[in-house]
Amino acid sequence: MHHAPTLADIEAAHARIAPHLHRTPILTSRLLDELSGAHLLFKCENFQRAGSFKARGAFNAILSLPEAQARGGVATHSSGNHAAAVALAARARGIAAHVVMPRTAPAVKKAAVAGYGARILECEPTLAAREAAVAEVVGETGAAYIPPYDHPAVIAGQGSCFLELLADSGGRLDLVTCPVGGGGLLSGTAIAAGALAPEVAVVAAEPEAADDAARGFLLGRRQPQVLPVATIADGLTTSMSALTFGIMREHADAVVIASEEAILEAMRLIWTRMKILVEPSSAVPLAAILERRFDVAGKRIAIILTGGNVDLDRLPWNPATA
Amino acid sequence: MHHAPTLADIEAAHARIAPHLHRTPILTSRLLDELSGAHLLFKCENFQRAGSFKARGAFNAILSLPEAQARGGVATHSSGNHAAAVALAARARGIAAHVVMPRTAPAVKKAAVAGYGARILECEPTLAAREAAVAEVVGETGAAYIPPYDHPAVIAGQGSCFLELLADSGGRLDLVTCPVGGGGLLSGTAIAAGALAPEVAVVAAEPEAADDAARGFLLGRRQPQVLPVATIADGLTTSMSALTFGIMREHADAVVIASEEAILEAMRLIWTRMKILVEPSSAVPLAAILERRFDVAGKRIAIILTGGNVDLDRLPWNPATA
Repeated sequence: MHHAPTLADIEAAHARIAPHLHRTPILTSRLLDELSGAHLLFKCENFQRAGSFKARGAFNAILSLPEAQARGGVATHSSGNHAAAVALAARARGIAAHVVMPRTAPAVKKAAVAGYGARILECEPTLAAREAAVAEVVGETGAAYIPPYDHPAVIAGQGSCFLELLADSGGRLDLVTCPVGGGGLLSGTAIAAGALAPEVAVVAAEPEAADDAARGFLLGRRQPQVLPVATIADGLTTSMSALTFGIMREHADAVVIASEEAILEAMRLIWTRMKILVEPSSAVPLAAILERRFDVAGKRIAIILTGGNVDLDRLPWNPATA
Repeated sequence: MHHAPTLADIEAAHARIAPHLHRTPILTSRLLDELSGAHLLFKCENFQRAGSFKARGAFNAILSLPEAQARGGVATHSSGNHAAAVALAARARGIAAHVVMPRTAPAVKKAAVAGYGARILECEPTLAAREAAVAEVVGETGAAYIPPYDHPAVIAGQGSCFLELLADSGGRLDLVTCPVGGGGLLSGTAIAAGALAPEVAVVAAEPEAADDAARGFLLGRRQPQVLPVATIADGLTTSMSALTFGIMREHADAVVIASEEAILEAMRLIWTRMKILVEPSSAVPLAAILERRFDVAGKRIAIILTGGNVDLDRLPWNPATA
């Protein structure tokens, strides 16, 4: 089993990936401050390369591969942001990327991955079929498997976001909050915050309809995601790994949930008031804040907006989407 | 008749309004640079207070009013961004705002104006009805009329955007481009550029379906807008005034047009690649660039993204909108 990365790993990751990635801005909103009663600092990973924080972990994992291993290329399975991030990072290193995607994945996501020069292998839309297809391509090509979150180099890369938050937030932080799906971003954030700024509370947020992390956090043991999951935050339906669950238990302060209604409302507020595109998953922490799921009064709160890859033809408030 | 503002007026406007407004960021995009063959610097007035550059002109005009005149409040007619900007600026000065809006104006726009504390007066959706209603409220209340573009203080405020562009663009600029509707932003930009950076070409862009500025620029005399106008860039269907037309003739280098198809495509590119919300009007300059309506090869080009107020329930690519 993998072991958790350290602050030194996260700092090394940041130095390794920074030349390739955007130092994303922190935006604020008077209206959202008024609505929340807090001072909110939005870290805009929706502006990150390939459209999400996933580029951090993918670049760190791929740039860390020894030359002999890198030569065989990389492989992964994903229907979303991790696939695009791996494709982009592989292109930056000049190696092949084999990306297994369910044949039902949206054309716009396949186009993004193909646009970065990756080879797409279609499979049936089940986890078993995806894992089998990745195993096959790894066996055939010798490619290194780059998992979406269950890997120390991926977690260390995601943790680099908090280093920028701390440096750029212009004053003390009381709390940092991010969504939790598989737990890669949460793990990296919690390790970095615990080591560098233990006074900053770390709060994970997830949809009420996919509350495996919240239940597990309270019960003290990992809970399976109950499928099928009905949430618009489709990036957060994965289950945590033993590694990310253990890190969460050790370093996070709370896991809060948000209703579907609040997630949609928070997403619309971010779009209309901040004039930026975010995915539904990115809106979950703000949704929990606006539902008063935890005490935010008067606090300076950093919110990681995780990504901005949405299909404009299938927006959740478009009746044609349903 | 009004006379054109000078660079000194624009600099004074900037000093006057800066404490109240955002210094909006300049964003770039690798993909849009690749598509255009130029280096594009996007000045994000969609992030401006009240959601558009109109806040600059409204704040300058309203903060410039002598105290005795300000006490009577302000009035305007607008179905869009200028109404919200006037309402916000009046609230900042602590005076009343009377805003005449056609009864057919979208509820979301009325809500924005009402949200800033202005009094809304509904009228029939014709220019004559709007002007009559404003004249009536001015007569009754003694409010000062704040026109959307035909006023030196409004033009000087809009010109302040270029001062920030020049200071923040991090190197030489070859060209600045913005949309032209009534011509307030174009006029302020062209005066500022002509005085401070005469080497920077000033290019106005408008929809092919509302090409009164382009025709007038070529013919040397003001052309009426031919109604009804069928463009998604609904902010650009107004006609220029004698003042703004004269400034354009003297200080702008070219007026280019863009097709409806290109405007829609450019808007989608800005949304999906830059992850920001812009109005259709904001996409017109990029549309003209991507249609190769003027020579941009290798140039550093500043594009003013004028606003980001859109109704998410009526997006142009939503079939339910048609």
